[in-house]
Amino acid sequence: MTTDTIRPDLTGTLGEVSAKVEAAMHADLDQSLAGSDDLLREVVSYALFGGGKRIRPFLCVQASRCCGRDDATLYTLAAAIEYLHTATLMHDDVVDHAPLRRGRQTTAKRYSLEDAILAGDWLHTRSLYMVGKLTGVDGLDTFCAATAAMVNGEFVQKRLSGDCRATEEEYFGVIKQKTGNLIASACALGAVYAGAKPAQKEALQQYGQQIGLAFQIVDDLLDYTAREEQTGKEVGNDFKEGKVTLPLIRALAKADVRERDSMARLMQGDRTKPEAQEAIFAAIDRLGGFKSAAETAQKHIDQAMQTLDRLAAEPISNNETVALLRELAGFILVRKK
Amino acid sequence: MTTDTIRPDLTGTLGEVSAKVEAAMHADLDQSLAGSDDLLREVVSYALFGGGKRIRPFLCVQASRCCGRDDATLYTLAAAIEYLHTATLMHDDVVDHAPLRRGRQTTAKRYSLEDAILAGDWLHTRSLYMVGKLTGVDGLDTFCAATAAMVNGEFVQKRLSGDCRATEEEYFGVIKQKTGNLIASACALGAVYAGAKPAQKEALQQYGQQIGLAFQIVDDLLDYTAREEQTGKEVGNDFKEGKVTLPLIRALAKADVRERDSMARLMQGDRTKPEAQEAIFAAIDRLGGFKSAAETAQKHIDQAMQTLDRLAAEPISNNETVALLRELAGFILVRKK
Repeated sequence: MTTDTIRPDLTGTLGEVSAKVEAAMHADLDQSLAGSDDLLREVVSYALFGGGKRIRPFLCVQASRCCGRDDATLYTLAAAIEYLHTATLMHDDVVDHAPLRRGRQTTAKRYSLEDAILAGDWLHTRSLYMVGKLTGVDGLDTFCAATAAMVNGEFVQKRLSGDCRATEEEYFGVIKQKTGNLIASACALGAVYAGAKPAQKEALQQYGQQIGLAFQIVDDLLDYTAREEQTGKEVGNDFKEGKVTLPLIRALAKADVRERDSMARLMQGDRTKPEAQEAIFAAIDRLGGFKSAAETAQKHIDQAMQTLDRLAAEPISNNETVALLRELAGFILVRKK
Repeated sequence: MTTDTIRPDLTGTLGEVSAKVEAAMHADLDQSLAGSDDLLREVVSYALFGGGKRIRPFLCVQASRCCGRDDATLYTLAAAIEYLHTATLMHDDVVDHAPLRRGRQTTAKRYSLEDAILAGDWLHTRSLYMVGKLTGVDGLDTFCAATAAMVNGEFVQKRLSGDCRATEEEYFGVIKQKTGNLIASACALGAVYAGAKPAQKEALQQYGQQIGLAFQIVDDLLDYTAREEQTGKEVGNDFKEGKVTLPLIRALAKADVRERDSMARLMQGDRTKPEAQEAIFAAIDRLGGFKSAAETAQKHIDQAMQTLDRLAAEPISNNETVALLRELAGFILVRKK
């Protein structure tokens, strides 16, 4: 093997895994939706095949490969993870009244609220069945716990909405539940599928949790700093909806009494006004909130990298795959969409 | 044992099982929602403890008892079935914009659409986890297939909405998927849990399917003939929403061309007008649609009873329990709410 063939190639592997996972999704839908209503199939397909990056299935596949297993069914398991992720996005977009996702209409906008709710339920059920079948009750437990936590995260987030007293601890509780756990589960399920040793599973799950947190912090940063053409979804939504995210929390922590009051007034006022949006952006920027949040994302990526060092030290780990996981962690930090 | 102690007592056993299932639900929620957001717990509890008849958990328990197993965990399995049923009702009520369920506001009305969607997702996930844990992949398969079919049934029903050409076969396809399969699954899961022989499981599942169909036909009849105080939910909704149910299908089959046209015009016109509702009721009544649908419900109950005869002939079946299942089938036919 030349050094060329073992040089990790994130884009290439993402594309390769994505193609295999999409083939597994098509094969599964052909079977599981045989004889079903045409519109159900159309809505499910619209939601699933909309240009997602397939990061979660990729992580599942890499985790399993890393622990030495790579076979056809692995891509079905990875597809199940994408099903659940998609189901939650469909319901989240209903709950958030979001018009856009990945540069096109959300399922609820393109079809209807009813279709998005029900087709989301279909994907949810199918996903859990596949996970139970392929990884047994252990995998099902991990996966269902992540799903239940996602719902709880939404409730906590709603409770904290518009509240400038929301703490950093509460913010991390929410993003762990809403994002970190499912990404960690994707890694854990791959490990369970491969029959990993507990230390390997633990390290992969930890890695997933850390990059998941970084991923969400970057998402929350982009919601303030990106343009819609970049992200393919509406930006500035978090402030409009009263979500108190890390840049704002960090800015508030640096603010004096007068600045705090003025930011709290912006949060409690009419958040749809462009002037309010500009004022909060300027305040966060002046108080270093964006910079501080970006540093924290970097810190979680560093922790993920350290976890990978532990993993690479495990005798049966596949170090080429570990190198790819390292690249992915780096990519999360620099992503612009 | 005196004849008195073996005399089946449906009301008493329903009450006994219901109390045990509710205790299992409380115990499970205490554990699974420990540390969760208070509002999530409140919404889940509101949805679960609203005076449901607990027919599905009852069937699961009786199916297991019938096959010789009755222990504490059985009620947790039965609780999981009620979780899923409740989750589907929560989402159905969102989709149907229903204001009332069991004589009080639906979850979406009492809380919000968002809360009903998300808390429904929570119950869905929890339910599937419990079923997987207690009955393995076999039970999970049966249960997930029923859930997926429910969604498909909703899509088919929507496609047929307002269409007087909807056939009896299509109607039965819809009610089997929307109602029959979950009731059949409740019976099947009880049998799987008890380690039933295939013939027993098959008979119980068949029984569930038949009473499920009768249950839904009666529901569709009551939607035309009952009063809101009776059913605890809005009546006359099916016509308003354009749902073509059995009484209408049977009436259309008896109608001459002129009557058919006039009924089709009512279906395609403004169905919220009281005159339209009175006219369709009168037409169905005159053409014997209600009577004919009631006879078909009776026919399915008869088939359920025959299935029970087969079951009672199985050597290890508990015939006291079989007698209770017989009573339940009779009750479905005469229920007024």
